[in-house]
Amino acid sequence: MTIPDSSTSPVARAAPRLAAQIHFILEIDKLKSVLRRTSILEGSRRENSAEHSWHLAMMALLLAEYGPPDLDLTRVLKMVLVHDLVEIDAGDTFCYDETGRADQNERERRAADRLFALLPPDLGVELRTLWEEFDSRATPDARFAAALDRLQPVLLNYTSGGGTWREHRVTRDQVVERNQPMGDGAPELWEYARSLIEDAAARGLIER
Amino acid sequence: MTIPDSSTSPVARAAPRLAAQIHFILEIDKLKSVLRRTSILEGSRRENSAEHSWHLAMMALLLAEYGPPDLDLTRVLKMVLVHDLVEIDAGDTFCYDETGRADQNERERRAADRLFALLPPDLGVELRTLWEEFDSRATPDARFAAALDRLQPVLLNYTSGGGTWREHRVTRDQVVERNQPMGDGAPELWEYARSLIEDAAARGLIER
Repeated sequence: MTIPDSSTSPVARAAPRLAAQIHFILEIDKLKSVLRRTSILEGSRRENSAEHSWHLAMMALLLAEYGPPDLDLTRVLKMVLVHDLVEIDAGDTFCYDETGRADQNERERRAADRLFALLPPDLGVELRTLWEEFDSRATPDARFAAALDRLQPVLLNYTSGGGTWREHRVTRDQVVERNQPMGDGAPELWEYARSLIEDAAARGLIER
Repeated sequence: MTIPDSSTSPVARAAPRLAAQIHFILEIDKLKSVLRRTSILEGSRRENSAEHSWHLAMMALLLAEYGPPDLDLTRVLKMVLVHDLVEIDAGDTFCYDETGRADQNERERRAADRLFALLPPDLGVELRTLWEEFDSRATPDARFAAALDRLQPVLLNYTSGGGTWREHRVTRDQVVERNQPMGDGAPELWEYARSLIEDAAARGLIER
């Protein structure tokens, strides 16, 4: 559904600053329709990027103690909440799809240009800066947030007996290489994830 | 899918504290399967409580300036992230269903007893306390969080030409009564929501 730009739009009934905020809130509803490769544990449908982002935010508040000593939870929560917004235009890029990943940065940058410009400038700059920090893993907070973004599908794939690893015949080396950066953001969680990956390989859930 | 309790479970491969945290993280995946009455704007499927919670968290960080002067954004984010977890056992109760609402408190309390007990005690107490604060609208932070929880379906229903208001033939007085508490948590947002409700009533999207 296109958000109507007429007098019947909720945007038209608000003061300019609130109008921009409401417009953005309605626009990002689209993230609920961006499907990831991973499936949810109940039923067999694929996970969307909005509920995935909620799951990461819950993980951030539950696993904060495994992050850097001076972790700023508010910033981590904001980063995981906004980290996938660019997928509204750029779509979800499967992490083991080398072709798709080739132009991923460019597609996501254009998406960021459009989306964050919908907001009042102060908020647009804040969200874009958080997204760039997350995306470049520039700080300990960002590396922790990015570690959660990798751990979550490992948990879902392992629990569901292989999930997308099995479906796409991903190898153990690919899974280790993809998830290695977890070690920079949350060493204890990476050690744990590694034990899951090795066990999955031993049991044939990932190709060797 | 039941989370297996055998040696093939991710929980079995972690130290006790981390095991409890991971178990909870897998358990709350179920919130992605709890359907609300409201539909998402794109397509016609119903919204689930996990993506709804993400949307509220985004609204909290975008609309914080309309909250109380000393708003604690971290606490508000935590509250909206956890506020619907009890629905994993208790289900979503439609806010205009008087029968369902009669035993809602008891069902949700039992759900909280089970769910938060899965966590290490410090985290279990923290999350339960946040949920109770939200649920009883005990503080300015909680009243702001609760205001967002009411504003979000108003935005979706209004934008989609009536949505659940129309579908369930809800009257203007019912919508005003249900959303009135928004005024305690975010007066400017309630003033704005009221203008949407009055316009919806004037255009026949809500029964008069």
